[in-house]
Amino acid sequence: MKTEIQNKLQQMVEQNLIDIEEAKEKGKKVIGLYCLYSPAELAVAAGAIPLPLCGTRNDPIQAAEEVLPRNLCPLIKSSYGFAATGTCPYFRFSDFLVADTTCDGKKKMYELLSAFKPLHVLQLPQNQDPSSALPFWLEEVKKCKGFIERQTGVSITDAKLSAAIRLMNQERLAQKALMDLAKIKPSPISGMDLLTILFRTGFFADKAQGIRLIHEIAAEIRNDASQGMHPFSPHAPRILLTGVPVGLGSDKVIKLLEAAGGNVVCFESCSGYKKVFQIDETIDPLQAIAEQYLSTPCSVMSPNQGRLDLLDRLIKEFSVDGVVDLTWQACHTYNVESYNIGKFVQEKHRLPFLHLETDFSEADTETLRVRIEAFLEMVIK
Amino acid sequence: MKTEIQNKLQQMVEQNLIDIEEAKEKGKKVIGLYCLYSPAELAVAAGAIPLPLCGTRNDPIQAAEEVLPRNLCPLIKSSYGFAATGTCPYFRFSDFLVADTTCDGKKKMYELLSAFKPLHVLQLPQNQDPSSALPFWLEEVKKCKGFIERQTGVSITDAKLSAAIRLMNQERLAQKALMDLAKIKPSPISGMDLLTILFRTGFFADKAQGIRLIHEIAAEIRNDASQGMHPFSPHAPRILLTGVPVGLGSDKVIKLLEAAGGNVVCFESCSGYKKVFQIDETIDPLQAIAEQYLSTPCSVMSPNQGRLDLLDRLIKEFSVDGVVDLTWQACHTYNVESYNIGKFVQEKHRLPFLHLETDFSEADTETLRVRIEAFLEMVIK
Repeated sequence: MKTEIQNKLQQMVEQNLIDIEEAKEKGKKVIGLYCLYSPAELAVAAGAIPLPLCGTRNDPIQAAEEVLPRNLCPLIKSSYGFAATGTCPYFRFSDFLVADTTCDGKKKMYELLSAFKPLHVLQLPQNQDPSSALPFWLEEVKKCKGFIERQTGVSITDAKLSAAIRLMNQERLAQKALMDLAKIKPSPISGMDLLTILFRTGFFADKAQGIRLIHEIAAEIRNDASQGMHPFSPHAPRILLTGVPVGLGSDKVIKLLEAAGGNVVCFESCSGYKKVFQIDETIDPLQAIAEQYLSTPCSVMSPNQGRLDLLDRLIKEFSVDGVVDLTWQACHTYNVESYNIGKFVQEKHRLPFLHLETDFSEADTETLRVRIEAFLEMVIK
Repeated sequence: MKTEIQNKLQQMVEQNLIDIEEAKEKGKKVIGLYCLYSPAELAVAAGAIPLPLCGTRNDPIQAAEEVLPRNLCPLIKSSYGFAATGTCPYFRFSDFLVADTTCDGKKKMYELLSAFKPLHVLQLPQNQDPSSALPFWLEEVKKCKGFIERQTGVSITDAKLSAAIRLMNQERLAQKALMDLAKIKPSPISGMDLLTILFRTGFFADKAQGIRLIHEIAAEIRNDASQGMHPFSPHAPRILLTGVPVGLGSDKVIKLLEAAGGNVVCFESCSGYKKVFQIDETIDPLQAIAEQYLSTPCSVMSPNQGRLDLLDRLIKEFSVDGVVDLTWQACHTYNVESYNIGKFVQEKHRLPFLHLETDFSEADTETLRVRIEAFLEMVIK
């Protein structure tokens, strides 16, 4: 990434912390959200600042393990550890929390997390059946709206919800435009840069400012590309990373892939392509929110055909040469699902496939490096 | 256990295998059930034989690990392994399978299991809210009834359901009467004997015969007790085992506890006291089934106050001296919940508490023995 962009991002991250503090002093509420299924539109419609709180760093995990089992997903331990140690400014800013029963580990961790801040947990169905799961989920979204209204003292009208949907759709469009730059061959952006920009802009209190910034950066990269600038050789294998979400601090696999000469061109995860959906602006806003969020193809859904459909599309659109499936340690749903994902990638797309299970620590970095280098050698350009 | 009882049990287990084969030849259907949430009454009402299929042996786990992750609950791996290797007669007998989305691991394993036999999965809610989870669950029970009707060609009437509820209530009453023998001080039955009788009678095709046998055995043990016979010293610490279900083959912790001089007097698990509920015979049968099954206090429920309530009652009723909480490796819900269970046992009941996480193998037997012996020394009689 160019130094100017890096500096601008860093400066805006720092300014954003000050902005949030000032907004809170003026009475604005901050809502911490866990997991992609928790609808940020409800927070935006209540005039609150939504902040994503899933932990992506290793530091607070040791403290979390005083209460949580060691054999648990590092993302869950990191999230709890940040709360327990008070070391995440975004958690400290949060007036209350919204989460959902995504997976077994998170669901049970939230019981303990509720000791720190008021917490509302949406009951997430375990499939996406439009005749049973969807109406149940719509009621859950309504209950969550009621909780946010009570906590903020703001009445969330349909008009406010529709405006929130439009704003969030704009944000997701900007993120998608940025991600889609990597469809260019050779890609003008590295996976680490893509991740860094998406991660850093994800905490901006001023959504409009964040959207402008993403578009500015994308335009600059597109301009560089038109002048033939690209970070990797044109022969670099184009890798799609699927599976669990990643963020700064839980990025070792991306770093290893790109250090070994691969280019991560697409993230098929809820920190990447899964989150750039568009919510229908033409129907009842709560219904539209419920429908779109429930359709998120996370491995907690059973069956999860949506993930195969999305992978199928992304493998073609991003001209992918190989697929790496990342599972956080002890994430059972992604871990079990990997068997069928591997079969799909290898049999239908005839592409090399690598499944990695790891955590946020550096303990297995050398083993991973060896496996990743061997994998990239198999990826024929 | 007296040799006569042992022999009788063994002989009836062998006869039962022949009975099931003969019943199948006459056109009777066999339904394999996973997990306590799957209502056996629906199978009984359809004139079919319900068989519990959750794996309790280590042998088939290696084969399962060719498809499933190693870092997964041994019960799940054992269940899948029995199917994949064809080594469980009860699985082979099953014409079709009924399961539910209890936990992440099972839910995703069932996707792979459905390759072997027709499988219906009930969508289990993740809490027990009477206004949202219960009506959703009732619909799931109805769908399951429809599936069993289509598979068996039998129409399940309310009259048949009510008769099935009465029969299963009788079975559960018999099982409860057997378990309640251990309330006598000193207990006239060891935990291993209790487990063996419950496990072996759990596969009987002829429910009425099984009920009679349990009552006969209980009467014999009660008679022995009245003559002062009991397997342990009157000073043996009375242990309550809580947590995951156990069966023959996954019984090492019970064996170790009793070899070290403790007497396991109560199983607070779905292989023990959680399953001896009574279904209301006075209301609509499907509603009664839905209500009672949903109230099962498994750790997959969040919150799971019912487990604390049940523990509270059992600790008093069985005059318990110490509590051991057993978690199968990587069972996140029991593993995370153990933190609050430990606090409850130690703070409210002032009893020694030991949390063990293990699998079905013998790899950690010596470590467990040391920990269990040290724990029993803390248990003051």
